Amino acid sequence: MSTVDPTAGLARRIAVARGDEPADLVLTGGRVLSVFTGELLEADVAVVGQRVAGLGRYAGRETVDVSGLILLPGLIDAHMHLESTKLMVDEFTRAVLPAGTTTVILDPHEIANVFGLDGVRALLASAGEMPLDFYVMTPSCVPASPFESSAYTVNSADIAGFLASEPRALGLAELMDVPGVIGRDPEVLHKIEVTLAAGGHIDGHAPSVSGRDLNAYLAAGVGSDHECTTLGEALEKRRLGMQIMIREGSATRDVEALAPLVIEHGPAGCMLCTDDREPYDLLAAGHVNDVVRRCVACGCSPADAVIMATLHTARWHRLEGYGATAPGYLADIVAVEDLAAFRPVKVWKRGRMVAADGVALDVPRARVPDWMRGSVRIPAVEPASFRVPVRGPVRVIGIEPGGIVTREFAAEPPRGADGMLLADPARDLAKVSVIERHAATGRMGLGLVTGFGIRRGAMASTIAHDAHNLVVLGVDDADMATAVHRLAETGGGQVAVLGGRVIAEVPCPIGGLLSDLPVEQVAAAARALDQAAHDQLGVTLPAPLMTMSFLALSVIPALRITDRGLVDSVGFRLVPLELELVDATALASPAATESRSPQSLVPPPPADPGQAEHAEWHLGGPGAACKEELSDD
Amino acid sequence: MSTVDPTAGLARRIAVARGDEPADLVLTGGRVLSVFTGELLEADVAVVGQRVAGLGRYAGRETVDVSGLILLPGLIDAHMHLESTKLMVDEFTRAVLPAGTTTVILDPHEIANVFGLDGVRALLASAGEMPLDFYVMTPSCVPASPFESSAYTVNSADIAGFLASEPRALGLAELMDVPGVIGRDPEVLHKIEVTLAAGGHIDGHAPSVSGRDLNAYLAAGVGSDHECTTLGEALEKRRLGMQIMIREGSATRDVEALAPLVIEHGPAGCMLCTDDREPYDLLAAGHVNDVVRRCVACGCSPADAVIMATLHTARWHRLEGYGATAPGYLADIVAVEDLAAFRPVKVWKRGRMVAADGVALDVPRARVPDWMRGSVRIPAVEPASFRVPVRGPVRVIGIEPGGIVTREFAAEPPRGADGMLLADPARDLAKVSVIERHAATGRMGLGLVTGFGIRRGAMASTIAHDAHNLVVLGVDDADMATAVHRLAETGGGQVAVLGGRVIAEVPCPIGGLLSDLPVEQVAAAARALDQAAHDQLGVTLPAPLMTMSFLALSVIPALRITDRGLVDSVGFRLVPLELELVDATALASPAATESRSPQSLVPPPPADPGQAEHAEWHLGGPGAACKEELSDD
Repeated sequence: MSTVDPTAGLARRIAVARGDEPADLVLTGGRVLSVFTGELLEADVAVVGQRVAGLGRYAGRETVDVSGLILLPGLIDAHMHLESTKLMVDEFTRAVLPAGTTTVILDPHEIANVFGLDGVRALLASAGEMPLDFYVMTPSCVPASPFESSAYTVNSADIAGFLASEPRALGLAELMDVPGVIGRDPEVLHKIEVTLAAGGHIDGHAPSVSGRDLNAYLAAGVGSDHECTTLGEALEKRRLGMQIMIREGSATRDVEALAPLVIEHGPAGCMLCTDDREPYDLLAAGHVNDVVRRCVACGCSPADAVIMATLHTARWHRLEGYGATAPGYLADIVAVEDLAAFRPVKVWKRGRMVAADGVALDVPRARVPDWMRGSVRIPAVEPASFRVPVRGPVRVIGIEPGGIVTREFAAEPPRGADGMLLADPARDLAKVSVIERHAATGRMGLGLVTGFGIRRGAMASTIAHDAHNLVVLGVDDADMATAVHRLAETGGGQVAVLGGRVIAEVPCPIGGLLSDLPVEQVAAAARALDQAAHDQLGVTLPAPLMTMSFLALSVIPALRITDRGLVDSVGFRLVPLELELVDATALASPAATESRSPQSLVPPPPADPGQAEHAEWHLGGPGAACKEELSDD
Repeated sequence: MSTVDPTAGLARRIAVARGDEPADLVLTGGRVLSVFTGELLEADVAVVGQRVAGLGRYAGRETVDVSGLILLPGLIDAHMHLESTKLMVDEFTRAVLPAGTTTVILDPHEIANVFGLDGVRALLASAGEMPLDFYVMTPSCVPASPFESSAYTVNSADIAGFLASEPRALGLAELMDVPGVIGRDPEVLHKIEVTLAAGGHIDGHAPSVSGRDLNAYLAAGVGSDHECTTLGEALEKRRLGMQIMIREGSATRDVEALAPLVIEHGPAGCMLCTDDREPYDLLAAGHVNDVVRRCVACGCSPADAVIMATLHTARWHRLEGYGATAPGYLADIVAVEDLAAFRPVKVWKRGRMVAADGVALDVPRARVPDWMRGSVRIPAVEPASFRVPVRGPVRVIGIEPGGIVTREFAAEPPRGADGMLLADPARDLAKVSVIERHAATGRMGLGLVTGFGIRRGAMASTIAHDAHNLVVLGVDDADMATAVHRLAETGGGQVAVLGGRVIAEVPCPIGGLLSDLPVEQVAAAARALDQAAHDQLGVTLPAPLMTMSFLALSVIPALRITDRGLVDSVGFRLVPLELELVDATALASPAATESRSPQSLVPPPPADPGQAEHAEWHLGGPGAACKEELSDD
C-alpha cells in the first residue's frame, strides 16, 4: 500500500544505471553499507529522480564528495506515536531528519481518540508536504477499552474504509485488546478480518503474554510485538514467528535487555522502534540513530543494527523501495562518519539533501485546520469537585518506577474531620482525577496515587493515554482546580500549579496533544515543567508528566483511573475507590470465599500507619499470589 | 495474491490455540524446527482445519506420535519448470510429496509457448485439485526472442489480464530478455510496469550479467536471479539487493559453488530452487529436499538450508501463511528422522497426511483437456530435407559439457561429391535441425553441432526450449526424417532412431511436452532413451536429450539454432551457416574493418583438418577477445 510508484521514471533510471545517461546526482568516494550482506562497498551512488540508479563508478550533473563517510539507508521507525513528541509534523521532521530518520510508521491513536480518523487524515495531509515519509497503521483500539471515554470510536467498518481510501495506511496498529483477541470478541475479530482482507498486516502489543495465550494471539494473525522487556519473552515470541520490534523510548528502554536476542540468533525478524520519545530526547540523544547506537553499544554488530532500522522494517511494513541503498531503491541516504556514534553529516531524502551537520533544510510549515484547536471542553471545576466522602480502606494506584505498569495497593484513607478524602503528602498519597474533556459531560473519576512523591500543588495534562481526557494530580484541591482551568483556557497541554499560580507549562493547542511551537521551545518547556515539578512541587519520580499521562491507560496492569473511575485492568472491570469489606459470617461459607477474587480482600491496617512512608499493602497485580483472608475489623 | 484466506476459521483457530477447544490433529512428541531462530523446539503441534493453531502441549481429536522425528515446514521450490519433469500435475505431485515438497512456484513458459496463457490456465485448473499448492509466475518471454517461432505470443496486455484474473499468478517469471530490459525496449518495460502496477514481483534470469548492466537490470525492478554459477557472481548480485535462488537441477548444479555465500554471509535473501529436474532425478535423489541435503553436505547449517527452502521462499513470493510451523501458518509439515538425509517419514499438506514412508497418498487423476493433445503439426519431411549445398567454412555449435551455454566454432564443411553438407562422425560433427511444428509452416533451420559424440542414427524432441519446435540431431538424414515422423505420429516427446527403427522413446502427448504416464514409467523411459543414445548411437555426452532440448534456446550464449536458422545469441541476430569471407581488398580500408564484428571474421583453416578430432577454432562467445583478422585464402 506504499504510495511510491515503482514505474515512474523507469526508462531513465535504467539508462543512468547503465551509464547511457548522466545521473542527476552522484555521491562519490564513500563506502556504502550493503544491508544485504553487511559489507561496506567502495562505490559511487548514482541517483536519478527520487531513486538510486546504480552503485559503481558514475558521472552526474551534480557530484557530492562523501570521501571518508559511510552511506547508510535512511532510517525507519517501525512504530511510534507522533503525539508523544508533542510536535506537529513539521517540527518533528525538523527534529529527526538531522538524526537520519527519513521514514516513520505512526500509530496515530492519540489523535484518533480526540478527532477520530478525520484527525489522522488531517495529520497525513500535512505530513504529505514534508521531506519525510509518514505512514500510518490504523488505530485498532479507539477507545482503548470500554472504560475510557474517547471523543470518537473507531470500529471495524471505519478501519475498512480507511484502509481502502488512504494510500498511506498500511495495516492495523498495535492491537492492545489482547483479551478481546484471544476471547474472540466478534468486533475485535472483525477488525482483524477487514485488515487482512485489505491486504494489510497487524502490529501487536502483548506485554508479558505467553504460552497458549500467545499462541492464540498469533493464531489470530497478529504479526509483531514491541512490548518485550526481557530476553526470555522476546525469544518465546520470536520462536513462534512474531516480528520483534526492539524499543528504546524515553521511558521504556529495552535495547540492553534484548540485544542478546540479536547477538545470539541474528537480526532476522527484528526491527527497531522508539514508540514514545520526548522532544528533548530527540534533540539531545537523537531518534532511530540513537536506538542503533544503543544496539551497537550493547554488542550488536553495526550492520545488524542498521539492518534492523532499515531493510527489516521496510519488509515488515511492505514498503517496497525502502530500506536499502541499491538500484531501484529510494535515494534515502544517511552519511555518517563512523558506525559507533551514527551522527549524520548529511541526509538525503528521495534524492534531495534535507539535512546537513545537524540542521534540517527547508522544512515547510505544517497546515493545521482550525477545528484541531480548542478541543478541551470542561464544565466549571471547583476545589470541591475533588472532595468525596470515604469510610474505610481505599485502593491506591502504585507507580512502578521506570515503566508504565502500576500496582494496586490499599490504604487507610487520609480523611478530614468532615469525613472527606484528603491527600496525604507525608504518606506519599496524592489525589488523581480524570475529567472527561471532549464533550463537557462533567464526568470524572477520583482516586489516590502513590509513588510521585509530590509534596505541594498540582500537575495536569490533556495528554492522558489513550482517550486523552484531562488528568490532574496533586495534594491541593484548589491548585488542582486551577490546573484544570488553565488547560481549558489554553486548549490543552501540560501544566504545573502551585499556590494558585501556573509555574510551568507546555501548551499543546492542537487537539490538546500537539504543540505548534518549534521543537527547541517545546523541549525546553517540557524540561522546565519536569524541573518545576521536582523543584517546586517536590516530585521525586523521574519524568512525572509522562508517567502521569499513562495513569489513565486502562489496558496496562494493574490499577488505572479514567473519567469513569478506577479500573482493574487485569480483571478488566471498574472497581470502587473503597475496598469492599468482607463479612465475617460469609467466611464460614466456602462457596462465598471461592467467589471472591484476590483484589477484593482487605489486608490488615499497619500496626503504626506512620511507618508506611511510601505505600501500603500490595494487593495483587501480575503474578501476585492469593492473599490471606481477613475478617472485617 | 495467494489464494489462502487468512480469516477462514479464525475464531476456532484462536480457541484451539488457547486450549479452549480440542485441536483436529496434534503431532506429539517431536521437535519443531523454528525457522525464526533456527532452534529445535520440544513442542506438540496443534492443527485445526488447514492451519497450525499452536505449539506447546495440546489435546486433539486425533493424535499422531512423532517421537524421535523433527518437524520441518513443507518445502517450497522457488522456481521450476514443471515441463522439465515431463510429468502432468498429478504424477508430479505423486513424485514430490514424498520428498516433502508441498508448494511449488512454476514458470510455465513451455506450455505458454505451445498453448499460450490458456495452456497455463488449464494446467492450474488441474493443479487446483492436487494436495500440493501450485503457484505460477507469468511467463515473461513468450517467445523467448524474435528468432523463435512459438505458437503463441504473450504480450504485456496478456500479462496484465492474467495477473488480474488468476489468483495463483504471483508476478512475472524469469525475465530472460536482459538486452530488452537494459536496452529499454518499450514492450519489455511495459511488461515490468503492468506487473508492478498489479502488485506483483519479478523474477530475473541474468547469467553472467555484471557491473552497470546488472545495476540497470536491477534498477528496472527485477528482484531475483537463479542463474548464478560462481560465488563472485552471486555475491555481486546479493550486495546489490538481488534475491539469490540457489539452483540444483539435473543439468545445472550450483549448490557447491554457492554454499559459501550462505556460510560466509548468512542465508538472508537466499532461496533454493530446482529449475529443471528430470523425472528420474525426482525418484532417485528427491526434489527440494535433495537441494537442502546438498546445501548441508556443502557446509551450510541445516537450519539455514531449511530456512532457504521455506520461509525465505514464502517471503519472496509473498505467500502469506507459508514457510513456517507456527501459529496461523498452513499446516504443511514434513517429519524427518535427521537433518542430514532429509528423508521424510510423513508429510502433511494443509493439515492432512499426504505421504508416508516415501509413498504419496490419494493423489487424484489430473484432468487434461483434449485440445492439449495432438499439437505436433509438421508437413512431410524427407531425408533430402536435411541436405543443403555449402562452399566454404561453416559455423558449428559447440557444446560446453555440464551446462547449456554453447560456443561458436568454425569448421571446413564436410561435403559430399554433390557439394551438399554432410555430417562427419569422425570429427564429431552432427547435423542439427529445428522444424516449426505448431502451424505446419515447413520452416526449418539447419546447422552443425559438435560435442555429442554421436556416431550413428538420430535423436529428436518436441521439447525444445523455449518455442518447443521440433529439434532433430543426427548423422543419418534418413534416421533424422524417421525421428521427425515418429514425433508427429505420437503427438510429441523424445525419440531415438537407428537404421529406420525407433529404438527408444518418451511419449509426451500433452502439448508435446508432458507425459500422461506414471512417473516411474516416464523416468524409466527417459533413462532408457539416454541409455540407447549412449549405447546404440554412440553418444558420449551425459544427458544428451536434455542438452539437445536447449540447443534452440536463443537467449543463452553463444550460437543456437531455431526454425529460422542459426542465432548469434550474443550479438542477438540471425547468422548464416556459412561464414562470410573477408575480402582482402576491404582490409585496406580502416572504416570497413571497424564495421565488422569479431564473429564475422574467419580464422585460418587447420594445417591438417584430420587433426581437428573434436572441434575447430573458437570464434567468440562470452568474454572472447577480438580475433586476429585474416584475408580470404
